[in-house]
Amino acid sequence: MFICSSSMQNFELQNPVKILFGKGEISKLSQEIPTSEKVLILYGGGSIKKNGVYEQVIAALKDHTYLEFGGIPANPEYEILLNALEVIKSEGITYLLAVGGGSVIDGTKFLASAALYEGESPWDILDQGIRTFEAMPFGTVLTLPATGSEMNSGAVVSRKEIGEKRGMGGPGLFPKFSVLDPTVVATIPKRQLANGLTDSYMHVMEQYLTYPVGADLQDRIAEGILSSLIETAPKILKDPSDYEAAANFMWCCTMALNGLIQKGVPTDWAVHAIGHELTALFGIDHARTLAIVAPSHYRYNLKSKMEKLVQYGERVWNITEGNSEERASKAIEKTELFFQSLDIPTRLSDYTEQYEGTAQTIGNTLNDRGWTALGEHRSLSPKDVESIVEMSY
Amino acid sequence: MFICSSSMQNFELQNPVKILFGKGEISKLSQEIPTSEKVLILYGGGSIKKNGVYEQVIAALKDHTYLEFGGIPANPEYEILLNALEVIKSEGITYLLAVGGGSVIDGTKFLASAALYEGESPWDILDQGIRTFEAMPFGTVLTLPATGSEMNSGAVVSRKEIGEKRGMGGPGLFPKFSVLDPTVVATIPKRQLANGLTDSYMHVMEQYLTYPVGADLQDRIAEGILSSLIETAPKILKDPSDYEAAANFMWCCTMALNGLIQKGVPTDWAVHAIGHELTALFGIDHARTLAIVAPSHYRYNLKSKMEKLVQYGERVWNITEGNSEERASKAIEKTELFFQSLDIPTRLSDYTEQYEGTAQTIGNTLNDRGWTALGEHRSLSPKDVESIVEMSY
Repeated sequence: MFICSSSMQNFELQNPVKILFGKGEISKLSQEIPTSEKVLILYGGGSIKKNGVYEQVIAALKDHTYLEFGGIPANPEYEILLNALEVIKSEGITYLLAVGGGSVIDGTKFLASAALYEGESPWDILDQGIRTFEAMPFGTVLTLPATGSEMNSGAVVSRKEIGEKRGMGGPGLFPKFSVLDPTVVATIPKRQLANGLTDSYMHVMEQYLTYPVGADLQDRIAEGILSSLIETAPKILKDPSDYEAAANFMWCCTMALNGLIQKGVPTDWAVHAIGHELTALFGIDHARTLAIVAPSHYRYNLKSKMEKLVQYGERVWNITEGNSEERASKAIEKTELFFQSLDIPTRLSDYTEQYEGTAQTIGNTLNDRGWTALGEHRSLSPKDVESIVEMSY
Repeated sequence: MFICSSSMQNFELQNPVKILFGKGEISKLSQEIPTSEKVLILYGGGSIKKNGVYEQVIAALKDHTYLEFGGIPANPEYEILLNALEVIKSEGITYLLAVGGGSVIDGTKFLASAALYEGESPWDILDQGIRTFEAMPFGTVLTLPATGSEMNSGAVVSRKEIGEKRGMGGPGLFPKFSVLDPTVVATIPKRQLANGLTDSYMHVMEQYLTYPVGADLQDRIAEGILSSLIETAPKILKDPSDYEAAANFMWCCTMALNGLIQKGVPTDWAVHAIGHELTALFGIDHARTLAIVAPSHYRYNLKSKMEKLVQYGERVWNITEGNSEERASKAIEKTELFFQSLDIPTRLSDYTEQYEGTAQTIGNTLNDRGWTALGEHRSLSPKDVESIVEMSY
């Protein structure tokens, strides 16, 4: 059953994050965090000690009291975060500073919430979907453009021991500020850049490639981000120290998931839901799972997404020839070729020889979980998902 | 002398305004203003009593304590605002609610600042350019999309007795919330709709039609607003009760001046500066003065704006033939025709027979004021302005 609203939906928008964008902005940290606060600096595997970001942060905080907690892994791990929570409580920390990519920022959001949580176990926040209205204040210094977490109020945390990955969020989880210095892009490995480009591209697509509701400006902004990413991608992969390209890449990633383009429109997110299962099964990078699933998802749902696919093809890829079906198919092909141009293979069989049976495995998993149907119409059953995954072999 | 930066400028962005968008959202007022507050409802000439907005506001505030202050005129007048300030102080008001268009909202911003100002005279705020960091909390219910004041922190106030119009602003002047209900558009007179379309179109142009700095996404969002306004204009003028068109129109006006598209790019604002003088001299509606000045301004500065004019022509008006100069000229012509399609004449002589000598008068005024040079290069002298005004006769 398709439930289509034909006009723009009511919405609320509030995003209080202060963005400090540009070269040299890290030094302004000192003005954003009151010197009366006791700060915990959180980071990941230590790349910030090689690219100069760590030195800049420490220099900026020379008049502050701070401690450090490094080693937050990709897909921030619950057990490790509990160690940081222990430090926060025992040391009387009052302010958190995430220096890193989406994983460090998401981990910090969990800690900001858990630090003030008075229930039995902080796992409740994730397990019971408790929304966070108040949290310990925190800021971020972004070192890896991709997830958009620096300007939104959501986070994803993993718990290996039980094989779970859970989301959390709430108005208390907006960073107080986020520093976006495009010069950090220069030292990001090419694989991560390609992932970031793909991730942000798919963030836009999940909020845009659904069905039309007459939200003309939201569509045009979404198309603007897509066009900008397409134009920036070859430049940034060729020379990540190209400041102009890095600045566009960074700002596109933030704007792709700061809440603006989803206001008033239906959203899909089926590609992410299916992609997460591929990461769980094969350890494939999150962004790459999206590139595997998206083309099949759009081909499988060609009819229900036809109008938007044609609009997308025309405005983003300049496809103006052929009938609607041809144009929609061509637009999907262009999308797939774009991912491939980033050196991101778009077939599951490019990543594993054990792909046979994946569709059934994922279908069963979804069935077992009793998930609600996926997609903008909430119409995709586990059976549909199986077909989509099979098409992506 | 041209001072051109060739890359995106550093920027700070923070906009905490909560937007409540859509049909029926006025009823949520009751949740946004604590019942412990004593509210002053501010409005203009009383159109809100004819279009049902007043009843909705009063119904929403049935559990609140409130007073009313009506009669705030277009170009909010300092002397009248002082009367409202008296009410705020004598009645112990703690929260302001602007119900109206840009003038009522701007007047309310002045009052929010003046209510907490401890200096000798509130005129200081305007006269000495005192920035407002703290103000009485206030919300808005927008009834006339145009100025964008509902989602920014600036205001303009007039003082007739000395013939002055002054700006003010500061981070304390963001509304706590703004209700944008597109159904209010249905009862707006056609002349005001045309003005709102022109005003918001020119807000975008002043922040976009300058010179390229590689801020690709900002450009594309600006172009998206322009394209959306062009597409929406005939629909909204034909039938202002068309909800889809009204919603797009309203959201475009807000996004045109909420700070987003100006981040990292040079801005012009010469058209506004010159237009204000035409309003002062002839009482021509603000938006209409912009339509008079813009085409001449762009023609006069064709060379320095060439790159952006060509980009604008191609992306917004689909102009792909001819050399750069031809394409730039064609883009200006299209802009002029767009204003005319809204029934907005684009020549000063369409508004007054006394246009002779206007250029010299404005040139002299600017000279007397000792104004800084205008435009994105701060290179336009009063002599240049005279030429531009003369071209617009």
